[in-house]
Amino acid sequence: MTTSEATAQAERIRATVTAYLDAVASGVATDVAALYTENATLEDPVGSEPRVGRAAITEFYKAIETTENTTELFTLRISGANAAFHFRVTTKVAEQTYAIEPIDVMTFDEAGRITTMRAFWAPSDTVQH
Amino acid sequence: MTTSEATAQAERIRATVTAYLDAVASGVATDVAALYTENATLEDPVGSEPRVGRAAITEFYKAIETTENTTELFTLRISGANAAFHFRVTTKVAEQTYAIEPIDVMTFDEAGRITTMRAFWAPSDTVQH
Repeated sequence: MTTSEATAQAERIRATVTAYLDAVASGVATDVAALYTENATLEDPVGSEPRVGRAAITEFYKAIETTENTTELFTLRISGANAAFHFRVTTKVAEQTYAIEPIDVMTFDEAGRITTMRAFWAPSDTVQH
Repeated sequence: MTTSEATAQAERIRATVTAYLDAVASGVATDVAALYTENATLEDPVGSEPRVGRAAITEFYKAIETTENTTELFTLRISGANAAFHFRVTTKVAEQTYAIEPIDVMTFDEAGRITTMRAFWAPSDTVQH
């Protein structure tokens, strides 16, 4: 891979991560799942049984459709076709606001679509306001 | 695994990550490598050929013995026997100071020793002062 190809790959990955956080905030499960490949896997939190395929992934994101969420990217590191990023999801439920700040690790195909996602966090990381 | 076992596991992992950053800062390659299992693997940066086994891992860390380094942990997320953490390594070489702020992902055995390490960063992330 040439330097310009590597740069283009990193730009595609950065665009997907940005689109991912925007889609999570906008709250439409199919929009989030559309960023994944058809046979992608999702392990959230890491150590749990992975969800396999876009239907299962869409089901996973249904939770964001009943809550009001905002997202904020803190740090994104890209290594080849892999990314790790630290971000915040803030969720409003009734009068309560919850924030989690996971580190997600993703791999991507040549088109910048997500092939695997693994979310590093523990319930004890949740902050309630 | 019971809740107290999970808590103890998380504490062992946290202790290893702290010891890892301390050992990198103290600059003795064998001290860093001692935190890994005998057959551990190290992939730094992610996408490069993994180094396998403690001898190869010790060799990798020899670089820290000829430079003056400090480390700072920003964020640590633990999921089961896995951790992801964002940190800074500042390196002084002659009159120059370089900082990189990778996200590392590690897995651990029951004793809290590192079984795999993968470092997410790109040379373009390096900041020179």
